[in-house]
Amino acid sequence: MKLALFAWQDGLHVGRIDEGRGVVERFDVASENLANDGVASLIGGDLPPLAETLPLDEVSLQAPIPRPRRNVFCVGKNYHEHAQEFASSGFDSSAAKGAVPEAPIVFSKLPESVAAAGAPIRIDPAVSTAIDYEAELTVIIGKAGRNIPAAEALSYVWGYTIVNDVTARDLQGLHSQWLIGKSQDSFCPMGPWVVTADALDLSDTAVRCWVNGDLRQDSNTGLLIFDVPTIIAAISNGITLQPGDVIATGTPAGVGIGFTPPKYLTPGDRVKVEIAGIGSLENPVEAY
Amino acid sequence: MKLALFAWQDGLHVGRIDEGRGVVERFDVASENLANDGVASLIGGDLPPLAETLPLDEVSLQAPIPRPRRNVFCVGKNYHEHAQEFASSGFDSSAAKGAVPEAPIVFSKLPESVAAAGAPIRIDPAVSTAIDYEAELTVIIGKAGRNIPAAEALSYVWGYTIVNDVTARDLQGLHSQWLIGKSQDSFCPMGPWVVTADALDLSDTAVRCWVNGDLRQDSNTGLLIFDVPTIIAAISNGITLQPGDVIATGTPAGVGIGFTPPKYLTPGDRVKVEIAGIGSLENPVEAY
Repeated sequence: MKLALFAWQDGLHVGRIDEGRGVVERFDVASENLANDGVASLIGGDLPPLAETLPLDEVSLQAPIPRPRRNVFCVGKNYHEHAQEFASSGFDSSAAKGAVPEAPIVFSKLPESVAAAGAPIRIDPAVSTAIDYEAELTVIIGKAGRNIPAAEALSYVWGYTIVNDVTARDLQGLHSQWLIGKSQDSFCPMGPWVVTADALDLSDTAVRCWVNGDLRQDSNTGLLIFDVPTIIAAISNGITLQPGDVIATGTPAGVGIGFTPPKYLTPGDRVKVEIAGIGSLENPVEAY
Repeated sequence: MKLALFAWQDGLHVGRIDEGRGVVERFDVASENLANDGVASLIGGDLPPLAETLPLDEVSLQAPIPRPRRNVFCVGKNYHEHAQEFASSGFDSSAAKGAVPEAPIVFSKLPESVAAAGAPIRIDPAVSTAIDYEAELTVIIGKAGRNIPAAEALSYVWGYTIVNDVTARDLQGLHSQWLIGKSQDSFCPMGPWVVTADALDLSDTAVRCWVNGDLRQDSNTGLLIFDVPTIIAAISNGITLQPGDVIATGTPAGVGIGFTPPKYLTPGDRVKVEIAGIGSLENPVEAY
């Protein structure tokens, strides 16, 4: 099941997507916290009754969780070939340079960096001249837990979405810890919706990314170094995960920094991330 | 002026501290968002009218911002002698090992790691056996801004408080990026209150920390490598700072990892951080 947040008739709404029919079935719920929680407001309850059925092209899709309850958790260097290309780039400020990490590398992006499908990734050349894309399968947590064993971790997953973990490579290297380079305004495109946990095969799901139609990343979640259960166990080790927490699981090879010379984003570009079973997330790149 | 959040008569309240008289003057305001925003709910408005005056020992002080609007920003390796001791420790997973950083190292702590003065720092030996204290002057942002020049940065500061940036050194090193080691539940004691920006001399304010009465850290904000304006300029470079954002500015030398052998925290310890002009923040250490 695909659950979306959308704007329609001057309000925010949540609904169920039916791609075959090209419609969204709106849920009949009040919109009080939707501007922050989006579809995460549905976690833990029965689905609300359905209201209108609307053509998808008459609504405006929003990021499924427009303002997560706290920073988005992100995993770095979590595909072998990407760990290699990043280590060779000169911007690797992680401890285990070049090597496969011995444990998940976990950092965060600010909630306010989240942007909807179709919203611009903003480039300010006075701030960064090395802006890169990263296609990532992203987990939405469905219930609270601490010290979650990997064997039970998937029962804490509510759904999946796509994040483009846009990164200012120069700031990522300059500041050593990655928060500033990863959290620039507009640097967390998320969407187009959430698929519920049952709908995805983590062992074999294609992750692809195109820039202006040029296929740059083409991998599979089966190639993750640390799989989703391992990531959840690592983050919840001493930390209570909360419903609505967002975890981006890392990007495969093919990012701009992996090319010689690097292929950074520039105004006018269009980045499309596609994950099989979820959908596609496309964003234009614009100057401020 | 000192502004505090406190529990009294089954409710949360904000008030103005008068240490000389040993009282808090309660503001007559509704408590709707106080459980999250605390004293930050006062940002940007006139001070509310005063209600009762209460003896300080009849109220229960809470963390001044119990649940910050997003992760707490933190700066690493921001005093020369601490940069040295940390580099020698074997846990330094920052890029510029041993050297003075060329730019502020900025990471974050989860909002839910915040704990009040007097609340326990929790130790779980199954999760970490290397838990350390870090006394830090902490900035509260008062208005939104992006690309803030250092020369104007202090006009964005609303107040100051104290944070003990408690750290699991083993997890900090293991995960390379510092989020997990810094965000363990209860690892962000904050308080005892906020002093407004006018009340502090950033060029000469003592920062001290005792463990069980043993003076471990004894430094001064005048010795910061990157001063408060430089930190605000660095974080707001491409990122919109928001009112209520919290920035811990880094810790001086004398942390547990700096000793041979290291002096880590154990259950039964008491950690007291004192910053001149603000007050003192004391927390017991307890096992789960």
